[in-house]
Amino acid sequence: MNINDQLKTIKDYYSPKIIGEVNDVYIKLVKIKGDKVPRHNHKDEDESFYVLNKGKLLFEIENKEPFTMKKGDMFIVKKGINHKVSSKKECHLMLIENKSALHTGNVIHEITKSIKNQMD
Amino acid sequence: MNINDQLKTIKDYYSPKIIGEVNDVYIKLVKIKGDKVPRHNHKDEDESFYVLNKGKLLFEIENKEPFTMKKGDMFIVKKGINHKVSSKKECHLMLIENKSALHTGNVIHEITKSIKNQMD
Repeated sequence: MNINDQLKTIKDYYSPKIIGEVNDVYIKLVKIKGDKVPRHNHKDEDESFYVLNKGKLLFEIENKEPFTMKKGDMFIVKKGINHKVSSKKECHLMLIENKSALHTGNVIHEITKSIKNQMD
Repeated sequence: MNINDQLKTIKDYYSPKIIGEVNDVYIKLVKIKGDKVPRHNHKDEDESFYVLNKGKLLFEIENKEPFTMKKGDMFIVKKGINHKVSSKKECHLMLIENKSALHTGNVIHEITKSIKNQMD
Protein backbone atom coordinates (compact mmCIF):
# COMPACT_ATOMS: atom_id res chain seq x y z
CA MET A 1 0.00 0.00 0.00
CA ASN A 2 1.36 3.39 -0.98
CA ILE A 3 0.35 6.44 1.03
CA ASN A 4 0.29 8.77 -1.98
CA ASP A 5 -1.97 6.38 -3.89
CA GLN A 6 -4.27 6.19 -0.88
CA LEU A 7 -4.40 9.99 -0.65
CA LYS A 8 -5.55 10.15 -4.29
CA THR A 9 -8.66 8.16 -3.37
CA ILE A 10 -9.74 10.77 -0.80
CA LYS A 11 -12.05 13.32 -2.38
CA ASP A 12 -13.51 15.15 0.60
CA TYR A 13 -11.90 17.34 3.23
CA TYR A 14 -12.31 16.45 6.93
CA SER A 15 -13.15 12.85 6.02
CA PRO A 16 -10.60 10.53 7.65
CA LYS A 17 -9.90 7.27 5.80
CA ILE A 18 -8.79 4.24 7.80
CA ILE A 19 -5.89 2.62 5.94
CA GLY A 20 -4.70 0.14 8.53
CA GLU A 21 -5.00 -1.21 12.02
CA VAL A 22 -2.30 -2.13 14.53
CA ASN A 23 -3.97 -3.91 17.43
CA ASP A 24 -6.14 -1.24 19.10
CA VAL A 25 -5.20 1.71 16.91
CA TYR A 26 -6.23 2.86 13.48
CA ILE A 27 -3.90 4.54 11.03
CA LYS A 28 -5.86 7.13 9.06
CA LEU A 29 -5.26 9.65 6.30
CA VAL A 30 -7.16 12.91 6.11
CA LYS A 31 -7.15 16.05 3.97
CA ILE A 32 -7.94 19.36 5.64
CA LYS A 33 -8.61 22.76 4.10
CA GLY A 34 -10.18 25.52 6.16
CA ASP A 35 -11.18 25.71 9.79
CA LYS A 36 -14.24 23.49 10.07
CA VAL A 37 -12.75 21.09 12.63
CA PRO A 38 -14.37 22.08 15.93
CA ARG A 39 -12.34 22.51 19.11
CA HIS A 40 -12.61 19.15 20.87
CA ASN A 41 -10.83 16.62 23.00
CA HIS A 42 -10.67 12.85 23.32
CA LYS A 43 -11.31 11.94 26.91
CA ASP A 44 -9.40 8.65 26.91
CA GLU A 45 -7.35 8.70 23.74
CA ASP A 46 -4.06 10.21 22.67
CA GLU A 47 -3.89 11.27 19.02
CA SER A 48 -0.85 11.57 16.76
CA PHE A 49 -0.74 14.06 13.86
CA TYR A 50 1.90 13.71 11.14
CA VAL A 51 2.11 16.17 8.24
CA LEU A 52 2.71 14.37 4.93
CA ASN A 53 3.95 15.97 1.71
CA LYS A 54 1.41 18.74 1.44
CA GLY A 55 0.36 21.77 3.45
CA LYS A 56 0.83 23.41 6.81
CA LEU A 57 -1.32 22.80 9.85
CA LEU A 58 -2.23 25.44 12.43
CA PHE A 59 -2.49 23.79 15.81
CA GLU A 60 -4.42 25.52 18.60
CA ILE A 61 -4.18 23.72 21.88
CA GLU A 62 -5.10 24.24 25.52
CA ASN A 63 -2.43 25.95 27.65
CA LYS A 64 0.01 26.41 24.78
CA GLU A 65 0.75 29.04 22.16
CA PRO A 66 -0.69 28.13 18.75
CA PHE A 67 1.94 26.68 16.43
CA THR A 68 2.24 25.69 12.79
CA MET A 69 3.26 22.22 11.66
CA LYS A 70 4.91 21.58 8.31
CA LYS A 71 5.93 18.55 6.23
CA GLY A 72 7.60 15.89 8.37
CA ASP A 73 6.38 17.32 11.67
CA MET A 74 4.65 15.08 14.21
CA PHE A 75 2.73 16.12 17.30
CA ILE A 76 0.87 13.95 19.80
CA VAL A 77 -2.09 15.42 21.67
CA LYS A 78 -2.50 13.67 24.99
CA LYS A 79 -5.93 12.50 26.15
CA GLY A 80 -8.29 15.13 27.53
CA ILE A 81 -6.50 18.12 25.99
CA ASN A 82 -8.69 20.46 23.92
CA HIS A 83 -7.35 21.13 20.45
CA LYS A 84 -8.35 22.51 17.09
CA VAL A 85 -6.55 22.13 13.77
CA SER A 86 -6.98 24.19 10.61
CA SER A 87 -5.19 24.93 7.37
CA LYS A 88 -5.56 27.79 4.90
CA LYS A 89 -4.42 25.61 2.01
CA GLU A 90 -4.95 21.88 1.52
CA CYS A 91 -3.00 19.84 4.06
CA HIS A 92 -2.44 16.05 4.10
CA LEU A 93 -2.16 14.26 7.43
CA MET A 94 -1.54 10.82 8.84
CA LEU A 95 -3.39 10.23 12.12
CA ILE A 96 -2.73 7.48 14.64
CA GLU A 97 -5.41 7.04 17.27
CA ASN A 98 -7.21 4.41 19.28
CA LYS A 99 -10.10 2.67 17.56
CA SER A 100 -12.43 4.09 20.18
CA ALA A 101 -11.55 7.72 19.36
CA LEU A 102 -14.27 9.83 17.71
CA HIS A 103 -12.52 12.19 15.29
CA THR A 104 -14.31 15.27 16.60
CA GLY A 105 -14.35 13.99 20.18
CA ASN A 106 -17.74 14.33 21.83
CA VAL A 107 -18.55 17.34 19.65
CA ILE A 108 -21.13 16.49 16.99
CA HIS A 109 -20.46 18.75 14.02
CA GLU A 110 -21.36 18.92 10.33
CA ILE A 111 -18.01 17.28 9.51
CA THR A 112 -18.41 14.41 12.02
CA LYS A 113 -17.97 10.99 10.38
CA SER A 114 -18.72 7.61 11.96
CA ILE A 115 -16.02 4.92 12.00
CA LYS A 116 -18.04 3.06 9.35
CA ASN A 117 -17.84 6.13 7.09
CA GLN A 118 -14.10 6.26 7.67
CA MET A 119 -13.73 2.71 6.34
CA ASP A 120 -15.24 3.51 2.92
CA MET B 1 8.99 17.37 16.58
CA ASN B 2 10.30 16.87 13.07
CA ILE B 3 10.90 13.36 11.79
CA ASN B 4 13.97 14.28 9.75
CA ASP B 5 15.58 15.96 12.78
CA GLN B 6 14.84 12.87 14.85
CA LEU B 7 16.41 10.64 12.19
CA LYS B 8 19.61 12.69 12.38
CA THR B 9 19.98 11.71 16.05
CA ILE B 10 20.03 8.00 15.20
CA LYS B 11 23.59 6.79 14.69
CA ASP B 12 23.23 3.02 14.74
CA TYR B 13 21.48 0.66 12.39
CA TYR B 14 18.84 -1.74 13.80
CA SER B 15 18.37 0.44 16.86
CA PRO B 16 14.74 1.61 17.05
CA LYS B 17 14.17 4.98 18.72
CA ILE B 18 10.83 5.62 20.42
CA ILE B 19 9.64 9.09 19.40
CA GLY B 20 6.11 9.03 20.75
CA GLU B 21 3.32 7.07 22.38
CA VAL B 22 -0.36 6.92 21.53
CA ASN B 23 -2.10 5.03 24.31
CA ASP B 24 -0.77 1.46 24.04
CA VAL B 25 1.43 1.90 21.00
CA TYR B 26 4.85 3.34 20.41
CA ILE B 27 5.86 5.24 17.31
CA LYS B 28 9.48 4.45 16.49
CA LEU B 29 12.09 5.39 13.92
CA VAL B 30 14.76 2.97 12.79
CA LYS B 31 17.56 2.85 10.23
CA ILE B 32 18.34 -0.45 8.57
CA LYS B 33 21.26 -1.44 6.37
CA GLY B 34 22.00 -5.06 5.67
CA ASP B 35 20.25 -8.24 6.65
CA LYS B 36 20.91 -8.62 10.37
CA VAL B 37 17.25 -8.55 11.45
CA PRO B 38 16.43 -12.20 12.24
CA ARG B 39 13.27 -13.84 10.96
CA HIS B 40 10.76 -13.47 13.81
CA ASN B 41 7.15 -12.89 14.71
CA HIS B 42 5.22 -11.04 17.40
CA LYS B 43 2.77 -13.49 18.94
CA ASP B 44 0.21 -10.90 20.06
CA GLU B 45 1.16 -7.71 18.23
CA ASP B 46 0.57 -6.30 14.77
CA GLU B 47 3.38 -4.14 13.42
CA SER B 48 3.24 -1.34 10.86
CA PHE B 49 6.21 -0.49 8.62
CA TYR B 50 6.31 2.83 6.75
CA VAL B 51 9.21 3.72 4.45
CA LEU B 52 10.30 7.34 4.94
CA ASN B 53 12.41 9.38 2.51
CA LYS B 54 15.33 7.00 2.18
CA GLY B 55 15.91 3.47 0.95
CA LYS B 56 14.08 0.37 -0.12
CA LEU B 57 13.08 -2.47 2.16
CA LEU B 58 13.02 -6.13 1.16
CA PHE B 59 10.17 -7.83 2.97
CA GLU B 60 10.20 -11.62 3.35
CA ILE B 61 7.07 -12.96 4.92
CA GLU B 62 5.39 -16.28 5.62
CA ASN B 63 3.09 -17.56 2.84
CA LYS B 64 3.77 -14.65 0.51
CA GLU B 65 6.24 -13.83 -2.24
CA PRO B 66 9.00 -11.49 -1.04
CA PHE B 67 8.36 -7.88 -2.04
CA THR B 68 10.21 -4.57 -2.00
CA MET B 69 8.85 -1.47 -0.29
CA LYS B 70 9.87 2.01 -1.37
CA LYS B 71 9.32 5.58 -0.13
CA GLY B 72 5.73 6.17 0.97
CA ASP B 73 4.85 2.46 1.17
CA MET B 74 3.20 1.06 4.28
CA PHE B 75 2.71 -2.59 5.21
CA ILE B 76 1.21 -4.06 8.37
CA VAL B 77 2.35 -7.49 9.54
CA LYS B 78 -0.42 -9.15 11.50
CA LYS B 79 0.34 -10.86 14.79
CA GLY B 80 1.95 -14.30 14.65
CA ILE B 81 3.23 -13.97 11.08
CA ASN B 82 6.94 -14.68 10.58
CA HIS B 83 8.78 -11.91 8.77
CA LYS B 84 12.27 -10.63 8.00
CA VAL B 85 13.24 -7.24 6.65
CA SER B 86 16.52 -6.21 5.04
CA SER B 87 17.96 -3.47 2.89
CA LYS B 88 21.11 -3.35 0.75
CA LYS B 89 21.42 0.42 1.20
CA GLU B 90 20.44 2.52 4.21
CA CYS B 91 16.66 2.60 4.69
CA HIS B 92 14.67 4.81 7.08
CA LEU B 93 11.48 3.46 8.60
CA MET B 94 8.67 4.53 10.88
CA LEU B 95 7.30 1.66 12.97
CA ILE B 96 4.02 1.57 14.84
CA GLU B 97 3.64 -1.28 17.30
CA ASN B 98 2.22 -2.14 20.68
CA LYS B 99 4.34 -1.21 23.67
CA SER B 100 4.59 -4.90 24.54
CA ALA B 101 6.18 -5.82 21.20
CA LEU B 102 9.83 -6.93 21.28
CA HIS B 103 11.44 -5.68 18.09
CA THR B 104 12.99 -9.02 17.22
CA GLY B 105 10.05 -10.97 18.63
CA ASN B 106 11.12 -13.83 20.87
CA VAL B 107 14.36 -14.18 18.95
CA ILE B 108 17.32 -12.92 20.98
CA HIS B 109 19.89 -11.67 18.52
CA GLU B 110 23.00 -9.48 18.51
CA ILE B 111 20.84 -6.56 17.36
CA THR B 112 18.15 -7.03 20.03
CA LYS B 113 17.49 -3.83 22.03
CA SER B 114 15.41 -3.50 25.18
CA ILE B 115 12.59 -0.94 25.33
CA LYS B 116 14.78 1.09 27.71
CA ASN B 117 17.51 1.20 25.06
CA GLN B 118 14.95 2.33 22.51
CA MET B 119 14.10 5.34 24.67
CA ASP B 120 17.65 6.73 24.67
